[in-house]
Amino acid sequence: MKARVLIRLKRGILDVQGSAVKRALENLGYTDLKDLRVGKVVEIEVEAPDSRAATARVEEMCQKLLANPITEDFTIECPLP
Amino acid sequence: MKARVLIRLKRGILDVQGSAVKRALENLGYTDLKDLRVGKVVEIEVEAPDSRAATARVEEMCQKLLANPITEDFTIECPLP
Repeated sequence: MKARVLIRLKRGILDVQGSAVKRALENLGYTDLKDLRVGKVVEIEVEAPDSRAATARVEEMCQKLLANPITEDFTIECPLP
Repeated sequence: MKARVLIRLKRGILDVQGSAVKRALENLGYTDLKDLRVGKVVEIEVEAPDSRAATARVEEMCQKLLANPITEDFTIECPLP
């Protein structure tokens, strides 16, 4: 079963990569951007009987390795649309 | 209007970061992972009258700056669920 994890910096933590990309887009003429944040996406295919079991398993992986709980939030999408 | 861009390496291009994360998870006991890919997510808030206009605008940004057309594919989600 496939799951998708979106990992983003918590609100309040300066997103330097996002700021740099936003500035680069502004230099290209996209001056109407209100907000831009850059994060990571991890797509995992796990063996699990259903989406609930897969989500629980992926959540465990996030807590143990994928996300940094101090600086990052994560959301899990499973099943994928 | 908010849009989300998912940027992933094309199939066939070695995902070194994904392989490293997969190996790390295997070392933690998650030995049943079939596939794991790491990519980027960019969340942008643009000024646009509707989701179609926003998508077109964000697609232009992807082609000009956000994604590398040689090595990366991107998908745009707008409006966000």
